[in-house]
Order: sequence, then structure tokens, then C-alpha cells
Amino acid sequence: MAVRGKEFPNCAFRQTLDVLEGKWKFAIIHSLLLHGTMRFKTLERDVAGITARMLVKELKLLEAHGIVSRRAYATVPPTVEYTLTECGLSLEPIIEAIQAWGEKNRAVISQA
Amino acid sequence: MAVRGKEFPNCAFRQTLDVLEGKWKFAIIHSLLLHGTMRFKTLERDVAGITARMLVKELKLLEAHGIVSRRAYATVPPTVEYTLTECGLSLEPIIEAIQAWGEKNRAVISQA
Repeated sequence: MAVRGKEFPNCAFRQTLDVLEGKWKFAIIHSLLLHGTMRFKTLERDVAGITARMLVKELKLLEAHGIVSRRAYATVPPTVEYTLTECGLSLEPIIEAIQAWGEKNRAVISQA
Repeated sequence: MAVRGKEFPNCAFRQTLDVLEGKWKFAIIHSLLLHGTMRFKTLERDVAGITARMLVKELKLLEAHGIVSRRAYATVPPTVEYTLTECGLSLEPIIEAIQAWGEKNRAVISQA
């Protein structure tokens, strides 16, 4: 099972928005791009402002969409690691474009 | 007054996400990029699934952020047109990156 996008069957743009929708997915993908494989607690700390509950929910959606892979280790307590899949890694140009726009428009952004 | 981004003062990426947050802003920017200046009703039809109320709210935020400009004409009934500002137009690389990802991952997106 990969990525939800039935509402706009012929609009790749809106289907992508549908998949990446929500305040946190871009931020999670951004962290995983920067740091590679991350454990849950590390990811929770890195994505400033997110709650554990929201992180669980968004990671489940990203996993269902085939953007993130999850690996659990039978340690005590159990350890879970998250990694971007190839599909997830291919989102890098979007993340870079957002970063570049933010840096160029920092004066605009911080005046709000 | 330009763009809200106080929550993550030194992270251009998160400030940009803060500004572009929400299901509809990208879709509105996408339509204005494609069609240039648009009237409210035309924009409402073009952004599939949006309600008039949500469009009013998102356009107000985009205007406050300096991304969209609004022009009203004293016709009867009054006519209002929306156009991307220079700052808004500079979002094009993000929109293009989302479009390109969607087209490359169409198989992944539509399987959801």
C-alpha cells in the first residue's frame, strides 16, 4: 500500500498535497533527510513543537504512504528506528526549495 | 506586515512551513501561478474542494503574509481580484518541485 490520492485522480499536484498534508509531515521528512535513520525519541526532540502522539500518527501515515520505513528491535525496552525510503528521499527537491525560499525571504518571514 | 514565523526564529525551513501551513495555501498559490490574476469565484472553482469561507480565510492570511495582493473594483456587485506578489511568485520552485514529484510518483500516489 502506498500513497493516498483518490480525491484528485488526475491532478498530480493535489494528490501530492493530499499525501504531504498537515503541519508536521514536511518537518519530519526534513529531519530524516538531515539526520538519516532516527529513533522515535530523537525525532520527537528534533521536530520542535510536535507531541509524541502527533508524531506516532504522522509516522503511521508516512509509513502507509511508502515514504518512511520503520524497523523495531527486540531490545528492552524495544527500540524503533525510522528511515526515509527511496520514495521519501526523492522528496528532497521539495524540501530544498522550501529551505531556499525561507532563507531568501527571511526578512519577509520574520517580520510577521 | 509580511509573514508569520516567530515560533522558530532561526529555522528558515520551519518558518516557511509556518507561513504555508494548511491544506489550501499551496493549492491557491498553484492556481494563481497557473492563471495569473483571478477573481474570487474563479479561484473558488479552480481550487477543487475548497469552501468560500475557507478561501476567504486563506486569502486573508496569504495577503497578510505579503504573498497575495488583493484589488477591489467598485462595480455592482463589487469585483475583487487576487494576484501573486513578487514574493508569492518566488514560491514557484516549491510548486514545481511538488508537481514534478507527483508526476514521477503517480503510480505510488494513486495506489493508496
